[in-house]
Amino acid sequence: MNGADGSRVDRLVAALATAGPDASPLDAYLVTNLVNVEYLTGFTGTNGACLVSNERRVFLTDFRYAERAAAIQGWETEIISGLWLEGLARRLEGRTGFEDDQVTVRTSNQLKQAAGSAELLEAGGQVERLRRVKDPDEIELIAAAAAMTDRLYELLIERGLSGQTEVQVDNWLTGWMREQGAEPSFPPIVASGPNGASPHAEPGPREIGPGELVTVDMGVKLDGYCSDCTRTFATGNEGDLDSLSREIYDVTLRANEAGLAAVKAGADGAAVDEVARAVIREAGYGQNFGHGLGHGVGLEIHEAPRLGPSSKDELIAGEVVTVEPGIYVSGATGVRIEDLAVVGEGGVERNLSSVTKELLFI
Amino acid sequence: MNGADGSRVDRLVAALATAGPDASPLDAYLVTNLVNVEYLTGFTGTNGACLVSNERRVFLTDFRYAERAAAIQGWETEIISGLWLEGLARRLEGRTGFEDDQVTVRTSNQLKQAAGSAELLEAGGQVERLRRVKDPDEIELIAAAAAMTDRLYELLIERGLSGQTEVQVDNWLTGWMREQGAEPSFPPIVASGPNGASPHAEPGPREIGPGELVTVDMGVKLDGYCSDCTRTFATGNEGDLDSLSREIYDVTLRANEAGLAAVKAGADGAAVDEVARAVIREAGYGQNFGHGLGHGVGLEIHEAPRLGPSSKDELIAGEVVTVEPGIYVSGATGVRIEDLAVVGEGGVERNLSSVTKELLFI
Repeated sequence: MNGADGSRVDRLVAALATAGPDASPLDAYLVTNLVNVEYLTGFTGTNGACLVSNERRVFLTDFRYAERAAAIQGWETEIISGLWLEGLARRLEGRTGFEDDQVTVRTSNQLKQAAGSAELLEAGGQVERLRRVKDPDEIELIAAAAAMTDRLYELLIERGLSGQTEVQVDNWLTGWMREQGAEPSFPPIVASGPNGASPHAEPGPREIGPGELVTVDMGVKLDGYCSDCTRTFATGNEGDLDSLSREIYDVTLRANEAGLAAVKAGADGAAVDEVARAVIREAGYGQNFGHGLGHGVGLEIHEAPRLGPSSKDELIAGEVVTVEPGIYVSGATGVRIEDLAVVGEGGVERNLSSVTKELLFI
Repeated sequence: MNGADGSRVDRLVAALATAGPDASPLDAYLVTNLVNVEYLTGFTGTNGACLVSNERRVFLTDFRYAERAAAIQGWETEIISGLWLEGLARRLEGRTGFEDDQVTVRTSNQLKQAAGSAELLEAGGQVERLRRVKDPDEIELIAAAAAMTDRLYELLIERGLSGQTEVQVDNWLTGWMREQGAEPSFPPIVASGPNGASPHAEPGPREIGPGELVTVDMGVKLDGYCSDCTRTFATGNEGDLDSLSREIYDVTLRANEAGLAAVKAGADGAAVDEVARAVIREAGYGQNFGHGLGHGVGLEIHEAPRLGPSSKDELIAGEVVTVEPGIYVSGATGVRIEDLAVVGEGGVERNLSSVTKELLFI
């Protein structure tokens, strides 16, 4: 259970004053997205919901989780027996917002039909908005996940890459995480040689040889929170590496550093992206960076805000974001370098990724 | 790409005659669930949709998948540039059914707003209904996935269990699957000793000792199709095992065999469940079998039909279902034995799980 405390739900209740359609007030809010439920209550499991209003904070689940429900502090808990949606609907009153960006049309219709005089209004995204800014407990949890990832990078550097297949490296990475009691926050990417030209390459049977670049993108999920870090390594000796690979490494690293230098509270997600993108464009690789610069990380590996050309987000102190420019040369090679940064008032408050960004030959 | 062929979409188009609300006819059907899209077209990727009617079969995706789209046979393909939902909506005409059990309220509202004179009607589940019955190609793909799982069980039996932690066994199982070019169809369960009392135990740091039961529940996803098989093994020598464990193993095995014997076209999912459940109840363990008997398996690890006390499904020849009774004794031990069976007219057409169900001491 994470550090969910009463202040989160207090902020949610405060937001209800303008959370309805056209900024109208809501009497209550129904949270059914399980990540949001976890954020508010600390509950983890496959079935649970929160119903919050000025007067009440109710956590609902079924008999399988009665024990976990009883352990949740600061919430009334109710165990729904019988049909889940009808049980939820019976407890609704007044103008109740729901997560229209998560709930299916069918579920929403069933809820509305069973809700009697209560009115269900479309008001998704309230908890996601709160989740953008991490409290100090959350930052420590993300930092712990990042530190475990850094440790794994150190072990990988000692162990080397050549002579193994991508899948073998991936299995070793994933296995290590799980032996530490963590999980991968997403399936690790191990993309060698020409496979590095695909930003979302899946590890395959290709054996890693000398004189090539290998992009490793991985993170762990530890105590509920995710980390995310990418490093690109070279194999063999320094003389083995082609000059294109060397050059795009250096450009990507400069873009990463420029992006990090632009991160601060008040900066636009699009503007930070542009700072890094300009470095790549000016080096002649503008067409080779086909994704956004970064994204928020927390309970989920991808959450708000976004750093990218079309982002409308303005950064806020306490957000945790990736900065991950890349250059991908189809059929040949690729580089991505990614750090995980805590947004501060005047710049990056803390870079949670401590693995060296010097090009290592391992 | 699987063996998707034109007959699937022909059957979908035929179903449109009564697929609307109150069995009204639809002019067209919009498929956005990616598993359903894969079933119809063979396409795999993160963005794609199908729009089908008597006149047209259109597959839609974005520029990233232009190459894969061009390889799809029997479909017009269109690449949507710009906003995805608006691009979809512009192509809608007449009474178009959509997957209301999959699409969120927000997405549905955006589609409706952009759809002009086209009418979007709630009609989810059409493709899932087709997917219940597997064609011969699909059965061969599931059989190949099951055969790979059987091979892994054989290797596990040779390798043994004692002295390893659950996570270590799990890492080895998952790693082997991935080295074969497959993926786990779900995270394998390795539940030893008292952990076996939880049907959905997650592998943990517990070291497996002698004289205990270990439930292993795993399957692979290979060429798009899933397998699912559970065996419970004993560790140490025959004399080490307590009599309760021995007894519940024998009862569970009899329930598994009784369930398999009841599977045939026309049988009710609830009735098949009851046949197996009665064996367990009569042995005095009725309270220790807290889940349904089984589920369909195909492109997804859990799909229709269901075998369970509240199932309304009637079995159809060509369905592939699990039969997986279990007995769980809290704090002590547990057993589950699961086979994957092809439903035939007069009984199980083919049991795809060939690993012995005799209690092995490994």
